[in-house]
Amino acid sequence: SRPTPRRLMTPSAVSIEKETPETHRPPTFLRESETRGDVRDRFEKMIREAQDSVCQAIEAADGGGSFKEDVWSRPGGGGGISRVLQDGAVWEKAGVNVSVVYGVMPPEAYRAANPSTASDHKPGPVPFFAAGISSVLHPKNPFAPTLHFNYRYFETDAPKDAPGAPRSWWFGGGTDLTPAYIFEEDVKHFHSIQKNACDKFDPTFYPRFKKWCDDYFYIKHRDERRGLGGIFFDDLNDHDQEMLLAFATECANSVVPAYIPIIERRKDTPFTDRHKAWQQLRRGRYVEFNLVYDRGTTFGLKTGGRIESILVSLPLTARWEYDHKPEPGSEEWKLLDACINPKEWI
Amino acid sequence: SRPTPRRLMTPSAVSIEKETPETHRPPTFLRESETRGDVRDRFEKMIREAQDSVCQAIEAADGGGSFKEDVWSRPGGGGGISRVLQDGAVWEKAGVNVSVVYGVMPPEAYRAANPSTASDHKPGPVPFFAAGISSVLHPKNPFAPTLHFNYRYFETDAPKDAPGAPRSWWFGGGTDLTPAYIFEEDVKHFHSIQKNACDKFDPTFYPRFKKWCDDYFYIKHRDERRGLGGIFFDDLNDHDQEMLLAFATECANSVVPAYIPIIERRKDTPFTDRHKAWQQLRRGRYVEFNLVYDRGTTFGLKTGGRIESILVSLPLTARWEYDHKPEPGSEEWKLLDACINPKEWI
Repeated sequence: SRPTPRRLMTPSAVSIEKETPETHRPPTFLRESETRGDVRDRFEKMIREAQDSVCQAIEAADGGGSFKEDVWSRPGGGGGISRVLQDGAVWEKAGVNVSVVYGVMPPEAYRAANPSTASDHKPGPVPFFAAGISSVLHPKNPFAPTLHFNYRYFETDAPKDAPGAPRSWWFGGGTDLTPAYIFEEDVKHFHSIQKNACDKFDPTFYPRFKKWCDDYFYIKHRDERRGLGGIFFDDLNDHDQEMLLAFATECANSVVPAYIPIIERRKDTPFTDRHKAWQQLRRGRYVEFNLVYDRGTTFGLKTGGRIESILVSLPLTARWEYDHKPEPGSEEWKLLDACINPKEWI
Repeated sequence: SRPTPRRLMTPSAVSIEKETPETHRPPTFLRESETRGDVRDRFEKMIREAQDSVCQAIEAADGGGSFKEDVWSRPGGGGGISRVLQDGAVWEKAGVNVSVVYGVMPPEAYRAANPSTASDHKPGPVPFFAAGISSVLHPKNPFAPTLHFNYRYFETDAPKDAPGAPRSWWFGGGTDLTPAYIFEEDVKHFHSIQKNACDKFDPTFYPRFKKWCDDYFYIKHRDERRGLGGIFFDDLNDHDQEMLLAFATECANSVVPAYIPIIERRKDTPFTDRHKAWQQLRRGRYVEFNLVYDRGTTFGLKTGGRIESILVSLPLTARWEYDHKPEPGSEEWKLLDACINPKEWI
């Protein structure tokens, strides 16, 4: 029902094939020839179970809305399941997507995904595997925070014309909280759950990934962060692969206990137009971060990923007021201060 | 009243100095030593007169709001005047800015502004002059279109360590219309005024700059344009400098007659929530274009220009619905079709 372009779309220099809608959710997006029980297989199972359990918890807490599901596949290999709950009782927009894609990556896309290797001059197309769960949950009530989480696993193989080169793999991800107003007990609860998940694996993880999160969600042109952080890590392959798979699983399983109790406490808090307008301004910052800086979003837009899945992270509504400055000492000012000067919450 | 960062801001690799607020509007931003009557001087006069006349026409048509003015200067040279009318009777946000800046551009900034010269390896810092008027006018009524216009003049001198290299100059700019609903008479009127302005100078200008506009305001990840176009040109130096100054002046003077009659016809049209929601979705596309593709915005964000002046182009409010598709044949569908398949309006 979208108007059709009269000309064929210009093929992008950096392009991954367009997705095809599917009527059924397949048991796996992997090919039958894939080895059952390997990391790819277990990572797909993990993210699909996490998608189910997060969506169940959101629907239960929402009490009104339900997720709409879109399944899609890529001719080259793999596919995904996008689930969106829009205009619920508690959430105005909640997206929980999984995708499992693989095939051959044009060298330009490989370089766009790995800017540091730009000068490597990797020769031919690069075989790749990428699977992940990605979610942004935007509640209606201005005292109920937005949550984002994303856990992903990548493999690249030797370029077709350099068969001797080594296969590489890495994990990435994180969970972070973006409130419009600070309730210290909420932020402490959220960070404690992240720290507990990290501490089960390595005592250096929480301090390292907490700082990485503060550094990553940085809106440079504002000199402020999008929210109050959490954990973030990327290109992680300096530990045992099994250990990192278990760590990502633990993190994904921590989403519901970290977030839902906060929502239960805040979803029905009375609010005024002033509170709503401030939430909307902070949503504007969310849009700025995602469209200008977020690696997944900017990579997805450049490479022609599924646009509706990529941009489901944007809030339903956002606001930009010229030169808005909160009154010093106000609740709005305190939130902004914590976005400008990241704090240790626990 | 903004919270102060506890640490000094990390100096950007590509950075133009921060602006200083001023209490008075100077008669000129040029130095006394500048030659009166040269192109820089006359271009500044032109854009400042255009700012005054557009702001007067907007205030008169609005009948309620008035512009708030911020004057700023740069220690290195020049400054600007930002004027914003927010929450008026007719416009929800109207920004009309002029800036006249000059000094020495770090080579990285020069390359960011001129991607095609990336491989030139221009050696040292480059002396530059940049002056422009830039405006985005977002009305409240969903049947009243958004207007953007921008006219600018640049000069660069030989890099400090290559004194023999030639000075270069160029003009850029354009005026384009972004409605949420199509009224053919409005779009024809708008494009006719642009064509008349062009035809006074060169019969090839309108067809060339109309197409350039359709190509420039292209949201690649959506395969659609932000609106219904107008004229756009950049890096223009292939005509007599006096002729191009006169052409830019003619274009700037055409803004009021091209736009205000449309606003007068549409500002009080009754509308429903559905019309408003569609306008808000199209405003979301406006945000996507400006933050992801617009050369001025992305350059400004990278180089640390005055953020509030740069982002005044964003609408007061915007909306993103997951996978929204207008009903085929509907008024919303017709607008989208014209954004996907640009039309000849006259």
